[in-house]
Amino acid sequence: MARVVRIAELEIDPRHADSYRALLSEEIEASVRLEPGVLFLFAMSVKGSPHCIRVVEGYADQAAYEAHLLTPHFLTYKTQTADMVLSLRLIETDPILLKAKDGRYSG
Amino acid sequence: MARVVRIAELEIDPRHADSYRALLSEEIEASVRLEPGVLFLFAMSVKGSPHCIRVVEGYADQAAYEAHLLTPHFLTYKTQTADMVLSLRLIETDPILLKAKDGRYSG
Repeated sequence: MARVVRIAELEIDPRHADSYRALLSEEIEASVRLEPGVLFLFAMSVKGSPHCIRVVEGYADQAAYEAHLLTPHFLTYKTQTADMVLSLRLIETDPILLKAKDGRYSG
Repeated sequence: MARVVRIAELEIDPRHADSYRALLSEEIEASVRLEPGVLFLFAMSVKGSPHCIRVVEGYADQAAYEAHLLTPHFLTYKTQTADMVLSLRLIETDPILLKAKDGRYSG
């Protein structure tokens, strides 16, 4: 299947954690609303460590992911958060089964 | 919000990886279909390491999660995979924003 699913692990400068979370939320809302190829973006922090962020990302295919990287809302997010991100690790994955209540991600 | 979202990181005995993935898939399909409080279960393996599994889990609340642990399909999965799982790490999270194309996980 062409679907791209990954997990991003970010460590944010604790002094900027609140600002980072707000900017990430804006980017997620815009991406899912505006881009047909963005299936889901789930952002969370590790309990007890609000500066440790996990984002589970789902795109229809590699082309959709690459197009996402060029959108104004993503580029704005990257520019505005550049000094806040201490580390970023992208875990590429092979989907096994993604099931949700609405059935949309079956497969 | 009462919603419970976590990431499970599992290392499976490579000799049993195929069997494990099949049993996990059965459990996921049953859980999402049968349990109102199971919002999503997304299983994937780390690219290049098919025995390294990540499951992103979403439950309506703590009670839904605890009820899930007592279901026949979950108990069957745990029993049948007990000897396959080399390690399990549960990362509890605080949701920041979960957005998906259908809008169901907004928030």
